Amino acid sequence: MNAKNTKAIKSPGAVYFMFGATGDLAHRKLYPALYSMYHSGKLEKDFAIMGIAPEKLSQGEFCDSVYQSTQEFGHCKPKSNKREWDEFSEHIQYMSLDINDTDGFHRLKEAAEQVEEKFQIAGNRLFYLALPPDLFDRVTSNIKKGGLLESNGWHRLVIEKPFGSDLASAEKLNEDILKVFAEREIYRLDHYLGKEMVQNISAFRFTNAFFEAFWNNKYIANIQITMSETVGVEERGGYYDHAGALRDMGQNHMLQMLAAMAMEPPSRLDPEDIHDEKVKVFRALRTYATAAQVHKHVVRGQYSAGELDGEQKPAYRSEKSVAANSDTETYFAAKVFVDNFRWAGVPFYVRTGKRLPVKTTEIVVEFKNVPDNVFYTKQDKIEPNLLVFRVSPAEGLYFKVNAKNPDSNPSAANIIPVAMDINEESLIGPDTTEGYELLLFDATCGDTSCFTRWGEVALAWAFVDKITEVWAGDQQEPKLYPCGSWGPEEAQQLLEKDGFHWWPMMGQRGAGN
Amino acid sequence: MNAKNTKAIKSPGAVYFMFGATGDLAHRKLYPALYSMYHSGKLEKDFAIMGIAPEKLSQGEFCDSVYQSTQEFGHCKPKSNKREWDEFSEHIQYMSLDINDTDGFHRLKEAAEQVEEKFQIAGNRLFYLALPPDLFDRVTSNIKKGGLLESNGWHRLVIEKPFGSDLASAEKLNEDILKVFAEREIYRLDHYLGKEMVQNISAFRFTNAFFEAFWNNKYIANIQITMSETVGVEERGGYYDHAGALRDMGQNHMLQMLAAMAMEPPSRLDPEDIHDEKVKVFRALRTYATAAQVHKHVVRGQYSAGELDGEQKPAYRSEKSVAANSDTETYFAAKVFVDNFRWAGVPFYVRTGKRLPVKTTEIVVEFKNVPDNVFYTKQDKIEPNLLVFRVSPAEGLYFKVNAKNPDSNPSAANIIPVAMDINEESLIGPDTTEGYELLLFDATCGDTSCFTRWGEVALAWAFVDKITEVWAGDQQEPKLYPCGSWGPEEAQQLLEKDGFHWWPMMGQRGAGN
Repeated sequence: MNAKNTKAIKSPGAVYFMFGATGDLAHRKLYPALYSMYHSGKLEKDFAIMGIAPEKLSQGEFCDSVYQSTQEFGHCKPKSNKREWDEFSEHIQYMSLDINDTDGFHRLKEAAEQVEEKFQIAGNRLFYLALPPDLFDRVTSNIKKGGLLESNGWHRLVIEKPFGSDLASAEKLNEDILKVFAEREIYRLDHYLGKEMVQNISAFRFTNAFFEAFWNNKYIANIQITMSETVGVEERGGYYDHAGALRDMGQNHMLQMLAAMAMEPPSRLDPEDIHDEKVKVFRALRTYATAAQVHKHVVRGQYSAGELDGEQKPAYRSEKSVAANSDTETYFAAKVFVDNFRWAGVPFYVRTGKRLPVKTTEIVVEFKNVPDNVFYTKQDKIEPNLLVFRVSPAEGLYFKVNAKNPDSNPSAANIIPVAMDINEESLIGPDTTEGYELLLFDATCGDTSCFTRWGEVALAWAFVDKITEVWAGDQQEPKLYPCGSWGPEEAQQLLEKDGFHWWPMMGQRGAGN
Repeated sequence: MNAKNTKAIKSPGAVYFMFGATGDLAHRKLYPALYSMYHSGKLEKDFAIMGIAPEKLSQGEFCDSVYQSTQEFGHCKPKSNKREWDEFSEHIQYMSLDINDTDGFHRLKEAAEQVEEKFQIAGNRLFYLALPPDLFDRVTSNIKKGGLLESNGWHRLVIEKPFGSDLASAEKLNEDILKVFAEREIYRLDHYLGKEMVQNISAFRFTNAFFEAFWNNKYIANIQITMSETVGVEERGGYYDHAGALRDMGQNHMLQMLAAMAMEPPSRLDPEDIHDEKVKVFRALRTYATAAQVHKHVVRGQYSAGELDGEQKPAYRSEKSVAANSDTETYFAAKVFVDNFRWAGVPFYVRTGKRLPVKTTEIVVEFKNVPDNVFYTKQDKIEPNLLVFRVSPAEGLYFKVNAKNPDSNPSAANIIPVAMDINEESLIGPDTTEGYELLLFDATCGDTSCFTRWGEVALAWAFVDKITEVWAGDQQEPKLYPCGSWGPEEAQQLLEKDGFHWWPMMGQRGAGN
């Protein structure tokens, strides 16, 4: 299986078993993605969606709820395609099932065989566990016991983060799953890998020959990866207070984006080759050897009360389901070292946090500047070049370059920074898909390129564990930052020590930093 | 004197002696430029414009004609600034003068001293010869004989192309001028060097550190310089039929742009350093050693009758003042070799012609492509990266890069070319100034950076002479191309032999090639 397979017009016929069918993820992301696949012809007639959850719901009630959420959250709206929706919804089945009930899985198997016959599906089965990870073991073992792996065709398991809470728990989880599914059948979904601009990192790097000229420590000064959220912990306090920003965002999305930026060109675009290169990056991450190094290179923050978008927001410790003395970080910034020939001496600065001023995901490549006191630098302050991948909410890419100021006023600066943007002719628009549609399609096509292999997960945990261990034994509390600020002062100092600063987010106009 | 001096808010007070004051150049370019300088504060009160021509005109008649042409051709319109214009026009004087009349130059001197006293000008005198070059000798010798160089302050001579018609005639011209003016007092104006985007070549190259990464033969496949005109020979038949495209455009504008692209970084931005580097490029131009090499690498074309912009246009040989059997080229294309370490193996393709489909000046840098059969190239045809300097009529710069096609239709191409353009936030607009304002200002500030030094002129003639000599002794007539086409077929073949093609002009949408 390789990337070329994704060029098939439609995905292979399959039954989509949606465990956690009544949950938030399924309703907000998965049903809209499946309907959109149907709308665009990636799903044809030979598919069925089997919703599975403990709730007692009639077929009609379930279909109505799927319609409602697709209408609300999907970019492809069923309301304007009523007839198409009716056809699509004929492929939806619901089964109330207690996941501890092995007999129920036998009934699920029978139901699956019926829809496979009805829609002439050859036995391909995709099991999507939109469930907490502590349920994975029970579900997968019952999938096997219930005989659901006894069809012709492939069987694939799709799971999402959190994949454990440290290396040990992730290993346990992985062992459990491997009792039932082979590694090549396991699709660990990181929805950031489905995002247009994250996928573009590879496209840009490997289809533009001149990129290779500067993609190294001779020309790049540092790389900054920012994922900022405006939301607080919201309804997720119970989970989040045990996880924190580093596990929730750092271990997966952020290190995956870092790997996409840092990896060597794979020898092929086949999934195995891409994973091999990412694993090499993770292996090259310099683990912080001591508590002192963690303190020096990683900033741990937690939001205090403050104003955001004109509203007063409570402190993290006042949030529902959060311990009143919680030390959980809602923000972290880290200076990460990739110890290989390409990146030696180039810091990767990563940061993420809740209750920051804007919601955005951006990757900024800061180039080394022209030498001081050469030519124009004698007259003007020259800004370094930037290459910015705007992942979300807007998608785009721009170079920040220096140009002659066309202002003929002789007192004006000679040289000014200007942005070279992908212009409006290109089709890249706002980030709407969240990647689920693309990733579900890849999974049915057997393309694991944009999923994470066990080796990556394990190494990412090993890197993160070193930090969380130090924090767990720490006397220091997280640094507080008020809601609506860009995190603790220490995160600014992290770069200032190196003579750098965080570049403003949200495009060339800047929106603070 | 160096580039920093151009940052003075105003130019030093001076008398501008405009020889050829009733001619086309003065009216279309020079008066609008001087008025615009006044408008923007580069000229204050201490200046005078001394119009000199044989015609008998009253002061009022001359001022009116200057007003008319400034209103018509200037981007800064006197009509909307009537009071300012009146102030400005007080500084204009006219003197009817036969340039052979040495006594007349004595009177000119007296007139100059009067205006210098009136406007408190310290004796700086700029002599602009908007005249055919065969008159230069007489004018400069009479400037000296008339005592016009006997003031305090500087004396500078500004002259324009054609600076001779070959190396021998240029040397003669130069010797004549050097009897009166020193090389450092001679400003050989090439108005393309005053163009915003030509000046930006240096700004881009030397203020953007990442440019240095790919500005060499490892990453660049070829560089294409195109100057296309839609006009025919118009009223210039008499001159043009003896000059031709190579002398008229190639020897000056095109080789100057080539030098700006190819030159090594100077050690300072001082004019001498820039000229030194340009001279090095001209020395590195590979002279075609034989007639066969000229035939192989240079295409000589002449327009035949054809349709352009929906109108039938006559053949060159039918134009007024053109010999009916003329072999003069109205088009040439050449493959030029720059034999140095940076550019070995990178052809510079240059072409210019009259009666081509669009009027435009562009420089296209074509990068070497990603290797075949690597990654994406297995699935898609990958276009090479381009960096395009749009000099005229629109000004701008863009990278043509490859990106992932966000079209989710799985049958679409994975990778599509998109343009990264300097966006509308930047101030670069249509090319309106023609550079004269900027260059006049530079001349009064003593900055010769954007003028051509004798060494450059001489080497450019030596390069061009080799071609014209072969053509002059040639049995082959120019290749005919119909008006409205992109030149003779041979010009396409020139690149096709190397596996390249001329990239379409006028931006990423393309307008033929």
